Amino acid sequence: MKLKVYADRMSQPSRAVLVFCKVNGIDFEEITVELSKRQHLSPEFRAINPLRKVPAIVDGRFKLSESHAILIYLASAFPGVADHWYPADLSRRARIHSVLDWHHQNLRLGAATVVLNTVLAPLLGLQLNQQAAAEAERILISSLSKIENIWLKGNGQFLLGGLRPSIADLSLVCETMQLELLDEKDRDRILGPHKKVQQWIESTRNATKPHFDEVHKVLYKLKKKLSEQQPNQPDGVMESRIRTPPTSKM
Amino acid sequence: MKLKVYADRMSQPSRAVLVFCKVNGIDFEEITVELSKRQHLSPEFRAINPLRKVPAIVDGRFKLSESHAILIYLASAFPGVADHWYPADLSRRARIHSVLDWHHQNLRLGAATVVLNTVLAPLLGLQLNQQAAAEAERILISSLSKIENIWLKGNGQFLLGGLRPSIADLSLVCETMQLELLDEKDRDRILGPHKKVQQWIESTRNATKPHFDEVHKVLYKLKKKLSEQQPNQPDGVMESRIRTPPTSKM
Repeated sequence: MKLKVYADRMSQPSRAVLVFCKVNGIDFEEITVELSKRQHLSPEFRAINPLRKVPAIVDGRFKLSESHAILIYLASAFPGVADHWYPADLSRRARIHSVLDWHHQNLRLGAATVVLNTVLAPLLGLQLNQQAAAEAERILISSLSKIENIWLKGNGQFLLGGLRPSIADLSLVCETMQLELLDEKDRDRILGPHKKVQQWIESTRNATKPHFDEVHKVLYKLKKKLSEQQPNQPDGVMESRIRTPPTSKM
Repeated sequence: MKLKVYADRMSQPSRAVLVFCKVNGIDFEEITVELSKRQHLSPEFRAINPLRKVPAIVDGRFKLSESHAILIYLASAFPGVADHWYPADLSRRARIHSVLDWHHQNLRLGAATVVLNTVLAPLLGLQLNQQAAAEAERILISSLSKIENIWLKGNGQFLLGGLRPSIADLSLVCETMQLELLDEKDRDRILGPHKKVQQWIESTRNATKPHFDEVHKVLYKLKKKLSEQQPNQPDGVMESRIRTPPTSKM
């Protein structure tokens, strides 16, 4: 039976799993669970993942959730996956686990909370929260600095000095891609000072093309829609967007 | 060269790593990094872990941080560790990864934030935050319900129906132990309704004795000290403790 991947391409961990499957030639069926339509709360999806989160997979009778656990499982269970994604070497593997563990309460918490409270909340029927966005921006900027100065230290194009990407690169880059939804000025302010991070995003995109852009298409489309809503931006855009949620046009 | 474990026993992930080493007869040297004395910010410790967090390990020339990554590395690198801690079977291993990944933004975020903002902040030179504590309590209670109803479903004493503990049991139980620092009424209110969770904590403690209690001694000592500060508690204790931080006696 074919692997089933339950995903919403608007969710960054979903995209990481989809890109991984495509790049590695894994034969799978993508089943869309639209978060904005609250499909993750349906009884059908609850039977797949009682935690009601995407992504989730079903491989035969085996069900699994949490994107990092899924990426590790796929890299281990599908023999065609190249070693660099999840190396057999114990210490290299351990350092990848370490980056993935760190990710949760740092880059992910920062980026996801900023984007949610600056752009996405109204599209999900939630309130924007300016204070939460400001606090999360501090976490996000501190996380980007750590990636720039600790994990991208050295000459490798990828995290931990790697010459080829691992599942940690894919997971973290898909998270930073969510920042595409911010207004360009805000995005430049946050990402601009982190030159190695920008290069690393580009390297990961190149190493996984054309699948990376194909899976991110829905994000680029929403980015365009959001920018068309506010054609002539004054200064302090993030603040103005928080005060005037663009709910009406979605 | 002996394994070095940099830890503060007041930190729940530090305790998980220490209990694991002791239970599995791993020969190691414990190096205390006192968070309350800001020793994690020293240049010496920065050379061990540039992220400035405990626990961290040094095994020969290999340095590693993040407790989950450390537990997985130790279970894989030290041949004496029994399989149940981190099973070789791919799907059992994947489900343990899934619980550990979930832990970060759920039980850990909830429990650590509640305890920090109800009891610990003043001891670390920080402000208590009543709103943060209330929000975190919702995350904590929801997390405990998920553990009770999803992962402790069935007849096994441990997570995922296990008959013996895994690194996920140890990590999550060490986190719940931090709730010992709350006032008894608050602790009973939060943990009381979760009978299976209580039994699971006891099972994990029994499966790792006498090391579990030995490593948690510092927590029991602080619990006693905190309870002596407020001998006759009125109702609404958590609230009153937030308003009157017990800084003076520490």
